[in-house]
Amino acid sequence: MTGAGRTTAPNSNGLALFTDLYELTMLQAYFEEGLHAPAVFSLFVRRLPQRRNYLLACGLDTVLEQLEGLRFEASDLDYLASLDRFSDRFLRWLEGFRFTGSVRAVPEGTPVFANEPILEVTAPLPEAQLIETLVMNQIHLQTVQASKAARLVTAAGGRQVVDFGARRMHGLDAAVKGARAFHVAGVTSTSNVLAGKAYGIPVSGTMAHSYIQAHHDESEAFAAFARLYPETVLLVDTYDTLEGVRRVIQLGDELGDDFRVNAVRLDSGDLGALARQAREMLDDAGLQQVGIFASGGLDEYAIGDLLAQQAPIDAFGVGTSMGISTDVPDLDIAYKLAEYAGEGRLKLSSGKPILPGAKQIFRRHQDGLFAGDIIGRQDENQPGEPLLQPVMREGQRLPAHTRDLDVLRSHTAHQLEQLPPSIRAIEPADTPYPVSVSPALQAHQDAVTRTVRARYAASGQGTHGGNAND
Amino acid sequence: MTGAGRTTAPNSNGLALFTDLYELTMLQAYFEEGLHAPAVFSLFVRRLPQRRNYLLACGLDTVLEQLEGLRFEASDLDYLASLDRFSDRFLRWLEGFRFTGSVRAVPEGTPVFANEPILEVTAPLPEAQLIETLVMNQIHLQTVQASKAARLVTAAGGRQVVDFGARRMHGLDAAVKGARAFHVAGVTSTSNVLAGKAYGIPVSGTMAHSYIQAHHDESEAFAAFARLYPETVLLVDTYDTLEGVRRVIQLGDELGDDFRVNAVRLDSGDLGALARQAREMLDDAGLQQVGIFASGGLDEYAIGDLLAQQAPIDAFGVGTSMGISTDVPDLDIAYKLAEYAGEGRLKLSSGKPILPGAKQIFRRHQDGLFAGDIIGRQDENQPGEPLLQPVMREGQRLPAHTRDLDVLRSHTAHQLEQLPPSIRAIEPADTPYPVSVSPALQAHQDAVTRTVRARYAASGQGTHGGNAND
Repeated sequence: MTGAGRTTAPNSNGLALFTDLYELTMLQAYFEEGLHAPAVFSLFVRRLPQRRNYLLACGLDTVLEQLEGLRFEASDLDYLASLDRFSDRFLRWLEGFRFTGSVRAVPEGTPVFANEPILEVTAPLPEAQLIETLVMNQIHLQTVQASKAARLVTAAGGRQVVDFGARRMHGLDAAVKGARAFHVAGVTSTSNVLAGKAYGIPVSGTMAHSYIQAHHDESEAFAAFARLYPETVLLVDTYDTLEGVRRVIQLGDELGDDFRVNAVRLDSGDLGALARQAREMLDDAGLQQVGIFASGGLDEYAIGDLLAQQAPIDAFGVGTSMGISTDVPDLDIAYKLAEYAGEGRLKLSSGKPILPGAKQIFRRHQDGLFAGDIIGRQDENQPGEPLLQPVMREGQRLPAHTRDLDVLRSHTAHQLEQLPPSIRAIEPADTPYPVSVSPALQAHQDAVTRTVRARYAASGQGTHGGNAND
Repeated sequence: MTGAGRTTAPNSNGLALFTDLYELTMLQAYFEEGLHAPAVFSLFVRRLPQRRNYLLACGLDTVLEQLEGLRFEASDLDYLASLDRFSDRFLRWLEGFRFTGSVRAVPEGTPVFANEPILEVTAPLPEAQLIETLVMNQIHLQTVQASKAARLVTAAGGRQVVDFGARRMHGLDAAVKGARAFHVAGVTSTSNVLAGKAYGIPVSGTMAHSYIQAHHDESEAFAAFARLYPETVLLVDTYDTLEGVRRVIQLGDELGDDFRVNAVRLDSGDLGALARQAREMLDDAGLQQVGIFASGGLDEYAIGDLLAQQAPIDAFGVGTSMGISTDVPDLDIAYKLAEYAGEGRLKLSSGKPILPGAKQIFRRHQDGLFAGDIIGRQDENQPGEPLLQPVMREGQRLPAHTRDLDVLRSHTAHQLEQLPPSIRAIEPADTPYPVSVSPALQAHQDAVTRTVRARYAASGQGTHGGNAND
């Protein structure tokens, strides 16, 4: 580590033990066997789910921050010692553990496809191995979330989408990181106050049924809330949606020019029909400026249906479907050794091919749209924009890597505009986005496969009493 | 707060802002309107998913700990002030905010059904309101997780199930809390080291393909790992599963009495066929003591199929399907105002009935099995075991509430044994578990509905210039 550009070492983030036990048992084996040559690991998604024409890479910022703060604390080492599997020598080595490797990655908010490396780590084998669980967990989560959110934003066709998912998302971390991933993907704001504080995301919210219920009179509740928050959104479906709208209009009559309510919120029933009736009632009352906000079990398909029937809805609150990505809550993500000690590596397990070595994605542009990708070797030249960029070197984040959410949002919006329309669409594309492997990478994979096969065939006659290979 | 039984106040856990913005805007309105009478909120799941015959309540311990440590920190208040929505008076009030309410709850590891309150909170309205997002998030997550895990444990029919889910679970919190929820539900151990440290859950793990790949010779890798961890599990599918098994047998020949390898792990291919062949090879070599561990995309259906074809598998490693509960990643969970200022409350929104007031679940037992539940009013007597127990009073956890994971595991195992076999089964039950509403609760619901309807009809003529109702 050079220390350049950093004045103080980050504190431990308490995440060194966020790893699978086998990473640590392997680390001790690497330590004992002296296996600490540079390794390259690739993180990629093996195949796209049927309901995703593309994925939106997300989570890199989190990962870089977490790698910078990875330390084994005294209590971590005490715990590991209590497991009776680790030697004192190894635990002392862990005490000094730092991530000193390099990371190349696709920028957050960039569409990626099957087998394309979202990031590649180059580091001494034990370092690259230890971080597997953490890196996969964070990139998987946020890529799942951003990919889903982009579909909702697309379906909403320019109308605001607001994140209401915190209550049903899978835990605290998912809810906070999700709010950020959604915002990167184009979601306007979040109801999650902690996420607002953590990332500076705009926060928004209306009122709950319990507020109305705590009053004896819905009209009184509306009046009291609008007195305190003149530009609020009033929830009208606690007892009878259209009667609720009538009471909002009545409040408008009473307040006259002081009536500045922004919108009514519909949260149940036939949202399309209710929105049309509410719109008509509001317009008839001269309240054209009062918008209609819809929520309640919405996903991209429901939003698409509502807009196809021209429901006059101005904004959508989306919770569970986006928060958990309920239709595709997981991706077949993998973090695989691709090179060790300068040699390409792969496994031959059925149906799970690995592209060996450090790689690059080259994306061709044509007529303002993405026209196809080539996955090549890192050091080759192919036509198109190289997507993987250096973001961390010697364990330190590079200054070029942006953390500004507004910049990321603009980048993402511009990226999504460049997707071919059939790929950006909600429905499965008839033809997948074209991704090919370069001849050089294919030749490398063939050569490595031949070498691995030949070595495998030649070995297996015993352990030769030998040790590791480098 | 009495202070009895607590020597030091818990520190802030930094979670006061883990809430939806509307909770805070409502809180300020309650503050301005003087709405701070006692409220009762019920947390329940509206309906069971088609693939769940029962749910396993989980997450209570987390929630109680979080409620005890809920404080607004200076940086939280600064952030809220920056939003330009909250008065200084209100922010000063938040500064002194503590949760001082009571909680009654079903013990963790107890089966629950649709509309049954998993917990009920009784507290001044603002306190009970603020915690909605946090309480829902945590109980939802862990109930989803425990309910799924119980199905896997059932499918495995006494064989060990190990949690391998950390890398694809939704974030850090889900992975750590999940390991606990799975263990409560009967999962043997977790690969998640941080969860092991946090909760004392047994940790386990084997080796990854990358360890094998980093060596030139699979046999050398096996030998080196077994030297360091004599009772390890060796992963045999990196290149060729059955050849890998042959090499493990060869290692056994070489090591003789020093060979203490516990099992081989199969992670790809036709697990049933490979397990049978591996078993035969191991038995033929006199290695009956070497078990077979299977992993790779397993869920309760796959485990059921493998055991139905009598695959000789001794333990299962399960990742994504359990970790995310991919088939049912969310529940229709709700936290609803049921009583305020001594009066039952409900809303009339279509299709979302609320049972008013504080409630109790009475569970009848017959011939050692659960025979049916009655949801009644809290203060009534019905035959059967009352499930909701006091667990927190005046903001403090009651000592009777167990935190011992082994006790919880025994409780859960005993509870699951008492489920009727068709309800415990993996396949959807032909007849759901019987749950009824007591006549007294039904009468109360009818009376509250009539009152709410009548008030609603009589109101709506204007805001009367009035304020709140109590």
